[in-house]
Amino acid sequence: MVASIPERTTLNLQPIQQHVSVSFDYKVYFTNEVFKLKNHMLAQLIAGDGEQKPKKIVVVVDAGLLEFRRSLLRQIALYTKYHADILTLAGDPIKVPGGEAAKNNPKLVKQIHKLIDSSGICRHSYLIAIGGGAVLDLAGFAAATAHRGVRLIRIPTTVLGQNDSGVGVKNGINAFGKKNFLGTFAPPYAVVNDLSFLSTLSDRDWRSGIAEAVKVALIKDADFFEFIRTNSEALRRRDMDAMQQLIYRCAQLHLQHIATSGDPFEMGSSRPLDFGHWAAHKLEQLTNYSLRHGEAVAIGIALDTTYSYLLGKISRLEWQCILNTLVTLGFVLYVPELEEKLSQPEHSRSLFRGLQEFREHLGGELTLTLLQRIGQGIEVHQADLSLYKQAISLLQEFVEDRHRKSISSFLSSSVSESLT
Amino acid sequence: MVASIPERTTLNLQPIQQHVSVSFDYKVYFTNEVFKLKNHMLAQLIAGDGEQKPKKIVVVVDAGLLEFRRSLLRQIALYTKYHADILTLAGDPIKVPGGEAAKNNPKLVKQIHKLIDSSGICRHSYLIAIGGGAVLDLAGFAAATAHRGVRLIRIPTTVLGQNDSGVGVKNGINAFGKKNFLGTFAPPYAVVNDLSFLSTLSDRDWRSGIAEAVKVALIKDADFFEFIRTNSEALRRRDMDAMQQLIYRCAQLHLQHIATSGDPFEMGSSRPLDFGHWAAHKLEQLTNYSLRHGEAVAIGIALDTTYSYLLGKISRLEWQCILNTLVTLGFVLYVPELEEKLSQPEHSRSLFRGLQEFREHLGGELTLTLLQRIGQGIEVHQADLSLYKQAISLLQEFVEDRHRKSISSFLSSSVSESLT
Repeated sequence: MVASIPERTTLNLQPIQQHVSVSFDYKVYFTNEVFKLKNHMLAQLIAGDGEQKPKKIVVVVDAGLLEFRRSLLRQIALYTKYHADILTLAGDPIKVPGGEAAKNNPKLVKQIHKLIDSSGICRHSYLIAIGGGAVLDLAGFAAATAHRGVRLIRIPTTVLGQNDSGVGVKNGINAFGKKNFLGTFAPPYAVVNDLSFLSTLSDRDWRSGIAEAVKVALIKDADFFEFIRTNSEALRRRDMDAMQQLIYRCAQLHLQHIATSGDPFEMGSSRPLDFGHWAAHKLEQLTNYSLRHGEAVAIGIALDTTYSYLLGKISRLEWQCILNTLVTLGFVLYVPELEEKLSQPEHSRSLFRGLQEFREHLGGELTLTLLQRIGQGIEVHQADLSLYKQAISLLQEFVEDRHRKSISSFLSSSVSESLT
Repeated sequence: MVASIPERTTLNLQPIQQHVSVSFDYKVYFTNEVFKLKNHMLAQLIAGDGEQKPKKIVVVVDAGLLEFRRSLLRQIALYTKYHADILTLAGDPIKVPGGEAAKNNPKLVKQIHKLIDSSGICRHSYLIAIGGGAVLDLAGFAAATAHRGVRLIRIPTTVLGQNDSGVGVKNGINAFGKKNFLGTFAPPYAVVNDLSFLSTLSDRDWRSGIAEAVKVALIKDADFFEFIRTNSEALRRRDMDAMQQLIYRCAQLHLQHIATSGDPFEMGSSRPLDFGHWAAHKLEQLTNYSLRHGEAVAIGIALDTTYSYLLGKISRLEWQCILNTLVTLGFVLYVPELEEKLSQPEHSRSLFRGLQEFREHLGGELTLTLLQRIGQGIEVHQADLSLYKQAISLLQEFVEDRHRKSISSFLSSSVSESLT
């Protein structure tokens, strides 16, 4: 007998309230030459899971990196043999292209899933991803979606990977022409920052990663900004000690923000560390991605710093100090795309359209981070376009002024040299 | 200047320990006719997010359900129009096949992602999935991986969906011939259990969902088992009040287990509620899935109950009481596949091979749940195959005995009827 439904009412059943709390603990390690035979860090971290050994691992590696570290795959094979009591390389490493190409080809996700399947990787085995942020994002997405999450060890090989994206809780690939359309929140099992990989970077990539450190220093930690300022020449000269310290502190601040934001998986209105990023996103697009993300972020920081100054939030001295630091680090702070179509804020080629896109990205209300002072950000919910126009002009003047000064100082030093 | 790396050591940088804690809160609602115009529950639950209205929604619906509820899509359209201040239907609903077919076609994931993209669904919009467990698993996976998770409202339409799979934190699709190879842990935004959908179920599906309730009652809640036992005739007759109470309590126990297990995303060695499931998984496979999951679980419960009895853990009375209840509910407790190739435990057609596969699935150590008494499970880490053989024989005897008795009682009642 089936009850006649439409006339029926439910018993008085109160909703059941569910509360699920999940904790993720992981460490970010710092080392040099992680796959050197006698470097036990990686083996020890896997040994430390307290489960039956040896554990299966598979490896996804950035093909761009292999051009500079041709012996890497051989080194990994030797390493796993040397530590055979702890690790078994359960399948041939997969090479994927570096940069956005890694995130634009959905077949790569499938290829990694296939490797996980064919090598019998389970939720207690490991996928080790080695490469730049894009490769880690791709491999992380594949790892997070196989068996509802296999353990991921990230070995970021770029400054940006080591101090920012590679230590966080996100992954993603592009789809439908949209950045990170597909992805999950999935903390890694561990992160290993291997200093030695930084020597493979071009000057542009070395520098790009510094922009996120400047960003987080400016809104969170005045002492850290002071460190960057006083070491800006050394950083430009690729001093490895200065870079290590920069990466360490930046990673620490990034991790702290995730842990203490109260909303690490961004389900509510939690704010990521996105000072300077509204303009950066738009400038990357307006320049057809000829600007690297970090290069665009540096310009975005310069712009919002200038706007903060014009709003009276920071002093002229602070403004100059920040912009000078960025220039000393080697960043270009002005591109012509800044002033395109400014009088048509709705135009797709207008920087100001980026404000609208940023608001939509946040899901409704506009929230911009500005500077209250060096080391402290402040959130505002509106943008004064005419003041932003002034900020763009002022930024342009500053850059031209610096340029003139450096030419005249170059000339005068040439003159004085020729006199001696 | 690039530092010469191999000779270099890192500064003494200690690992950074990260601790991320994430909370998920959601409600499981009970209602009748959720899309009736004057039923405000769904609209209210979306209104309750405190964000700017109206909110965009998209719908994924089980095509199998539409055969029994032909007006459903029209009803949904009317409902969204009626509640237009709160909801906007941002794209045409997607119909997907019901049952495992939903989980075997990766193009369906893509189709849902496309809908999410084209209708501008963001992390603050809603995907509403309506259907059986497989459809919810598919839609949940698509929702969890778009924009790193759009809000998912599940409306399970089967007993199994409403009391078990549909209220939990998992999703998944099949790949490489493996069940749930792809999936994530992703709690829903809300679950709405709509009683009216249960009338669309076949008797087999109605009954199948009861098996998981028997399972959780046996290992967790003696009072609940007593409720099922005393209502087993009514449940077989499809009494809706009894079913509502069964679903409510089963969902509650399932949710409690997830919330209090200490490991809701099963990262460590957390144990799901899998009493009777090792044999069930294998029997589903051995019968080429002609057994429904719940039907196989009922046999698995009967087998492990019998084994628990032979081990001396439960009394003969308890054993009989459990098996009689399952029979009264309408379950078949014996299939010939139980005794195939038992003397060759490694054979792929042997039930005992299922023990090995279960151990591998758990990632190393075998853990079986048995019964300590009605209402309390106990975990063991070994299986006595010769005792299991005896259990299979005893189960067969029990079933034959019941069969003989029911024939003789039928004959005697026929005789007594013909005498009157």
